[in-house]
Order: sequence, then C-alpha cells, then structure tokens
Amino acid sequence: MISSTSNPRIKQLVQWQSKSKERERDGVFVAEGLKMLEEAPEPLIREIYLTQETAETLQKGKTEKERVLWNKISRMDYETVSEAAFRKASDTQSPQGVLTVLEQPRYRREDILTAEKGLYLLLEDLQDPGNLGAILRSGEGAGITGVIMTKGTVDLFNPKAVRATMGSIYRIPFLYTDSLQDVIKDMRSRHIAVYAAHLKGSSLYDAFSFRKSCAFLIGNEGRGLRKETAELADHYIKIPMEGRVESLNAAVSASLLLYEAYRQRRQVR
Amino acid sequence: MISSTSNPRIKQLVQWQSKSKERERDGVFVAEGLKMLEEAPEPLIREIYLTQETAETLQKGKTEKERVLWNKISRMDYETVSEAAFRKASDTQSPQGVLTVLEQPRYRREDILTAEKGLYLLLEDLQDPGNLGAILRSGEGAGITGVIMTKGTVDLFNPKAVRATMGSIYRIPFLYTDSLQDVIKDMRSRHIAVYAAHLKGSSLYDAFSFRKSCAFLIGNEGRGLRKETAELADHYIKIPMEGRVESLNAAVSASLLLYEAYRQRRQVR
Repeated sequence: MISSTSNPRIKQLVQWQSKSKERERDGVFVAEGLKMLEEAPEPLIREIYLTQETAETLQKGKTEKERVLWNKISRMDYETVSEAAFRKASDTQSPQGVLTVLEQPRYRREDILTAEKGLYLLLEDLQDPGNLGAILRSGEGAGITGVIMTKGTVDLFNPKAVRATMGSIYRIPFLYTDSLQDVIKDMRSRHIAVYAAHLKGSSLYDAFSFRKSCAFLIGNEGRGLRKETAELADHYIKIPMEGRVESLNAAVSASLLLYEAYRQRRQVR
Repeated sequence: MISSTSNPRIKQLVQWQSKSKERERDGVFVAEGLKMLEEAPEPLIREIYLTQETAETLQKGKTEKERVLWNKISRMDYETVSEAAFRKASDTQSPQGVLTVLEQPRYRREDILTAEKGLYLLLEDLQDPGNLGAILRSGEGAGITGVIMTKGTVDLFNPKAVRATMGSIYRIPFLYTDSLQDVIKDMRSRHIAVYAAHLKGSSLYDAFSFRKSCAFLIGNEGRGLRKETAELADHYIKIPMEGRVESLNAAVSASLLLYEAYRQRRQVR
C-alpha cells in the first residue's frame, strides 16, 4: 500500500499525467476510471493503482461488471494507494479510485491507409484535448479507419483527451505526422479523396458521395485550416449555418462529416 | 484606470466569473474577448473593461473590424484596467484584454414555444459548460428556436459556457425549468413532437421526419436521460454506432440530431 503523496511512484504518475514529454519518453499514458480499465487491452496494461475502498468494492463483486473487472485486475499486478496519494495522482475532481498505466499504442501510416473504403480524419493543430477525445469517440461510432494529426495538435495521451475518448483511444488507429502535405500526397496516390471543411466551400457537405475512400480535413479551433493545407484538398465542403454562426465546434464539425459519410455508407449496404 | 487587483470592481468581476449565485443576484454575466463584445447587443451591455494595450490597438483602428468595435465602445462607458488587474478578473489563460458585463437576457416559455415549425432542445442536467455552449452554437447553426434546460443543468452564464457559444448566447432563446415534465406536456398540447435520444431507440434518427415542430431530449453526460423523463417522449430515436461506442459526446449527439432536422428542412424549402 502506497500511503505517502511523496512516494516516487505517485510522483511519477503526476509527471505522466501532466507532461507530454514524460509520457513520450517512457512510452506510456494514464487512463482514469473504471470504464477505461474495463476496456483497456490487457497487453498494453503496465500498472494498475486502486484505492483501498475501490479495491474492496470490486473484490466484493456485487455486480457482474465488478466481478469481470476484478478478475481482470487479479490476473495482473496492482497496487493499493491511500485516498490522499490517489487524489494527488489523479487528474479528475471526483476520481473513481482507479488509475491504469498503459503502453502507448503505435500505428504505421502504411497500415492505416491501406483499408478498403477507408474513412479518415486529418486534423491540423487542434488545441482542445476534450475536442480531440470526442472526435475519436465519434470516429469510432461512425466507423472511422484512422485519425492523422499534425505534430502541432494537442497530445491525445493528455488525460483530458484520454477521458473524452471514452475508450476509443484503445481501438482507433492514429498517428502524428510532421507533414500533412506528405500524407495528403500519399492519400492521393491511393485514391483517397480529401475534403476540406472550409468557409470557401460552395457545395454543401451532404451533396457529395463519401461512399469510396475519403478523408476530412479539420483545422484549428481558432483560425481554421491553414491556407496552404486547405489548398491541398480535392474539394472544399461547407456545413450550412443559419444565423450569425461562422463555424461550429471542431468536434461537432468532424462528427457531422463523419456521420454523413456513415449515413451514406449504411444506405449502400 | 483601475490598477490594483484588489479594486472592488475587479473583485466583483471575479465573483461574477466564478459564482453562478452572484451572477443571478445581479442579473448579469461576463463575456470575454473581442468577438463577444463585437456581437454583444448594445441594450444588454452594462460595463466594458479594456487593458491599456487593447484600448490603444482598437483606438488606432488598423482594420475595419477594429474601427467598428472602437465606435461601439466609444458610444458607451468603458474602463481601462492594468494587465495585472485584468488577468485577475479574466477566466482565460490568454486573455484578449476585453471584458464585457451584460444583463442576462430573459425569455418566456410562451414566446419560445409558439414558433411555427419550431426546433427545440430539452436538456436534462448537462454538466459540462463547454458542451452546453457548443450546443447553443450548433443550435443557432441549425436554425433552432430555443433551448430549455432543467435547473440541474450547468449555468449557461458560466464563463466557459459563454465562450463556447461563440456569441450564440446573445441570439438563441433559452430558459431553465423546474419541471421538464410540465414543458413536455405543454409541448404536447402544442403538437410539438418530442424525441428522446436513447439507447432503447429501435429506429434510427434519420428514419423520422423532423419537418414539423419537434424537440430533442438530451440527457446528462454520464447517466443519460432519467427513466421517467425518457418515458415522456413520443419516440425513442437511436444514433447508430459502430465498434464498442455506447454513446457520443452530448454536444455531438445534440448537433447530429439538430443537423438532421435542418438537412430535412432545407430539402423541403
């Protein structure tokens, strides 16, 4: 049982929670909460931390869910942690008493881009971790193949982003790229059509067919897509807006486009 | 010029930024940033605070936007504030040097529900201010008539929510209710169809016609709609999801439903 808030493992957890560089150096990230442990792929799990109270609740196993989760935990090592130490290591205001340290999954561009009828997002410099997480979650919902982001995009392993994925981070392939331009060229050579959500778009987003392989370019929350990036797209598409609205939240825009593609693809089946 | 961080007006701003009860008592809210002042309806503006730097930039008026904004500011009283005092009063990490105090707009249910072909959201106990703000923004984009929320929903005048509306808070009618049940009964008597986004839904959201007056019920981020609330709906509707996704972000769900209604209504015109 770890009881001190200055225990080196607690200090390390705080570092991993707060610093992208620390996570990258060690190739790990931290996922909080019961659901995130439930859905965590076992081969990726490195460490599990539980408060005494949570450990006891799970061990009693009143519900089927708790029994399944306790079995999973028991197959691995876990460490119990005092409430105070746990609160220190936690990134949330009302922690559930479960922290899982996982290996960062790695994907290769080659593997992501070779899907048949792929559905992709290309994200440029998104800054809000909640948006990024919500995008992965919607992406999985809409049957996305993968997400490719610029290096200037917020770290998907940021604890707020991890939580907002609601587990999709375990299942949706993603990668960071130095050059979106290279990726788009690569996509073009593979006949993946690239659509930019852009104010300049003269055609509405539901006027195109997204049944074949395609990718949607989504820009930064504040300034949208860079001009030179938008110019690489095959088509500009517009999400119509009433009133004085100039743009939608980035996660909302991405989700509307993905769900339009998904709607069309469901009708074809 | 207010230079001290302990100036009573700065202290009052901090109270309004951080406490829903303080805002309600005085019937005001604070909007940060240039865009929020640009779009603010003049009759609602009570106070404007600018840093010296921002005041000078606007006064110089290099762009048309700046000149228009400076004209607006000059028609009213404003107060310059030191950088330190401004940072104290600001809720953001990189403040733009503009704070506007506005009167809270008030709407009556009667006025909201009498629209022809109305489009409504009914929100139950949403907790994330960013979600709530994004919902108003999407709502305006999709041509919504109004948003009705339970008292348990986060305060729309919370500074994070205000920012996330990107100005829609000035234009979209909304109100808090003690009883969603009453509102739904009222809607029924006015032939407004109520749809609940619910896991139980057996019909997909794009299988219904939303061309006539209708409302979408959206539940709390964690637990969804209360059973007794969901049961009041005329129809359960389902947003389809691939993979292991059980639900989408609340702002994303609301936006998908509103934009499906908007898509159908655009086709009819």
